[in-house]
Amino acid sequence: MQNQTKISPPTEELLIRASDVKRASIKLAQSSNDNRQKALSAMADSLYARADQIVAANEKDLQRSEEAGLSQALLSRLKLTKDKLNTSIEGVRQVAFLPDPIGLRQLHRELDKDLILERITVPLGVLGVIFESRPDAVMQIASLAVRSGNGAILKGGSEANLTNKAIVKALQEGLNVSTIPSNSLCLLTTREESLSLLLLDKFVDLIIPRGSNELVRFVQDNTRIPVLGHADGVCHLYVDSDVDLTQALDIMIDSKCQYPAACNAIETLLLHKDIASSFLELALPVLRKEGVKILGDKTSQALGVRCAVEESDWSTEYLDLKLSVKVVSSALEAMEHIRLYGSRHTDAIATKNDDIARQFMLSVDSSGVYHNCSTRFADGFRYGFGAEVGISTQTLPPRGPVGLEGLVTYRYFLKGEGHIAADYSSGMRSFSHKNLN
Amino acid sequence: MQNQTKISPPTEELLIRASDVKRASIKLAQSSNDNRQKALSAMADSLYARADQIVAANEKDLQRSEEAGLSQALLSRLKLTKDKLNTSIEGVRQVAFLPDPIGLRQLHRELDKDLILERITVPLGVLGVIFESRPDAVMQIASLAVRSGNGAILKGGSEANLTNKAIVKALQEGLNVSTIPSNSLCLLTTREESLSLLLLDKFVDLIIPRGSNELVRFVQDNTRIPVLGHADGVCHLYVDSDVDLTQALDIMIDSKCQYPAACNAIETLLLHKDIASSFLELALPVLRKEGVKILGDKTSQALGVRCAVEESDWSTEYLDLKLSVKVVSSALEAMEHIRLYGSRHTDAIATKNDDIARQFMLSVDSSGVYHNCSTRFADGFRYGFGAEVGISTQTLPPRGPVGLEGLVTYRYFLKGEGHIAADYSSGMRSFSHKNLN
Repeated sequence: MQNQTKISPPTEELLIRASDVKRASIKLAQSSNDNRQKALSAMADSLYARADQIVAANEKDLQRSEEAGLSQALLSRLKLTKDKLNTSIEGVRQVAFLPDPIGLRQLHRELDKDLILERITVPLGVLGVIFESRPDAVMQIASLAVRSGNGAILKGGSEANLTNKAIVKALQEGLNVSTIPSNSLCLLTTREESLSLLLLDKFVDLIIPRGSNELVRFVQDNTRIPVLGHADGVCHLYVDSDVDLTQALDIMIDSKCQYPAACNAIETLLLHKDIASSFLELALPVLRKEGVKILGDKTSQALGVRCAVEESDWSTEYLDLKLSVKVVSSALEAMEHIRLYGSRHTDAIATKNDDIARQFMLSVDSSGVYHNCSTRFADGFRYGFGAEVGISTQTLPPRGPVGLEGLVTYRYFLKGEGHIAADYSSGMRSFSHKNLN
Repeated sequence: MQNQTKISPPTEELLIRASDVKRASIKLAQSSNDNRQKALSAMADSLYARADQIVAANEKDLQRSEEAGLSQALLSRLKLTKDKLNTSIEGVRQVAFLPDPIGLRQLHRELDKDLILERITVPLGVLGVIFESRPDAVMQIASLAVRSGNGAILKGGSEANLTNKAIVKALQEGLNVSTIPSNSLCLLTTREESLSLLLLDKFVDLIIPRGSNELVRFVQDNTRIPVLGHADGVCHLYVDSDVDLTQALDIMIDSKCQYPAACNAIETLLLHKDIASSFLELALPVLRKEGVKILGDKTSQALGVRCAVEESDWSTEYLDLKLSVKVVSSALEAMEHIRLYGSRHTDAIATKNDDIARQFMLSVDSSGVYHNCSTRFADGFRYGFGAEVGISTQTLPPRGPVGLEGLVTYRYFLKGEGHIAADYSSGMRSFSHKNLN
């Protein structure tokens, strides 16, 4: 998707489909926890029953994509073996056991006698999900949507069209034997439709783009619907002067090398000048052995880094075995660098000095700020959320790794017995504002 | 502000000022509850000491605006008497006693031994506040910003320029004798600056427009910064067939007439066909006595409403003594009407039937859904929040009346002792995910 792409207005047919999902979502929102759990179980059973057809559809997608010259990396993401499918089906069953995110009472207050205010979590409505390649994402996101009482309009990559159709057909068949309307889920298959989806702000309450940074940025730039996601993950590790060098080295290697394509891997290493030399002496051989390309500022080049970093590197997410290195004269300079070039994702400090750590934690405004541990922990599963809808780098909540709570909002319910505001303005009655249990 | 307005890029000078506020806000964010409370007290003292200058500045603004032909309504909003000023100063002192919204631990979890995750509320950063006329809003919003640890860039109406300058000068003098940096607050005075403010997404984390629907819509349409506010408040009251007519009448009169210029006043009355005739028989004389202009659909016209409603009325916020009336054949039709024409602000049902009420509460997706009480209760003070930053009609939180919690976000803090992700991927270690107290 390019920024120059023209977005045409939604077709009549798309509007009808979106409005059907919206209508179904209103019924879904009112369904009980038990009924949503049963629906997930039926969805999993149906996927299991349709497994052969799904795998066969995937083989056709693979063949077509191979002929079209899709890269080996993309082909391997597209491939859905029986084993992978079974793992996904297991995932659908597990989502049923996540705690119900809706119907939670966040506030319960008597405003006055018999005038009771409640704030209760409710589903958002309809999710618009755009993802690239991986057909397992369809099952995951569809199950999270149903769990949280939301309808979903799904758009996968065209190379996975047959697989996605077979999966969504199975999911809808599952819903058909449950109390949840089957058109709570709908699959878009053309590129035009997925673009028009961005304009459906009357029907879609949240867009979740799952894919490349370019996809996310394109979506953010082209819709008025709130977007859950992040375009960049430019994460930093700052190694302070008062530090356990071996521990810092372990953290650095894990943060960079354990899975460099992840958004929570670091791109930049900031070194306090007092330990820069001794740290690099330890680190450079290990990084080189791991195959990491290292780019440094002048000072770190003088300490053994061979390639020069360019200004644009500081704000680049490599998603690769590549690391930029800068020597700073203080923790303050490190924090200033993070403020200038970071993406408010996850940034870490390695230090034995608790005061410096505290200052770092309080002034670095990223969704995750870590002390003496790897940035790779920034993940919904690792945080114990049971699921991850996405990682958000916006300032407003929800930010950071977002679990099911990112798919709900709340409503204020006020129940009275004929209460009117005039009685409080006139002073005839007054508010008690008493919190109830 | 018109939609055709050209927004010029921020000047160098504005960028410097905004960056100063951002820098100050980082220090402010780290200040203790006690220091923020003392700062508010110093701000109030300083306003008190400068009261004569502020009132004198306001008199000059009034004179200039009167000569320029400002309407009587706007002049009265602009006017800041000594009494009004004292009330505002009292308000600043009261904000100091609101519970501290920052530093609240929302989550405290051991991921593994010595690997502790915390989610703690932190200030958003810098607020951009644009308001029209009322100079008392400057004091209110500045005190809410400081209370919640946020810097603020303020832009008031040009007719109040001298007053606002005198107020902000006093507020900064107050901050000067506190530990909070005085450039946490900054006042913009030209129209160009207030437009450029919308482009400062590097420095401003939330825009709060306080003024007409046109202002809010313009701001929403012209910035990538999140906006807290609402363009429309098209609220409804549905009177069901199974109803206490006298109670419903009281609720209707209060919802429409108690303060018709408020966003939480109703614009449309939906009547079940079975009670339409008897309800209108009671209601029409009262509404006419209150001076309400009534517009009805065909059925309600046959029942005594004299003027015809037009399609566009259903989605118009009158903010005036004007009411549109529709007769519906069921609660379902009422809910459908609200879904089509409502603005997701506040909608109420009057009924003795708890099942119908429950269905209404669950399927009307407005931030406030009320049963047997006036829509006029949708207000931060009436909800017991102690302050109201704004009312939001977006779906995502914060929605509805928003108190101080709308000015904070959270950060995840993770503290380890050299923990790395590879140990968990390899199975060498495993997560405990144990919630701590």
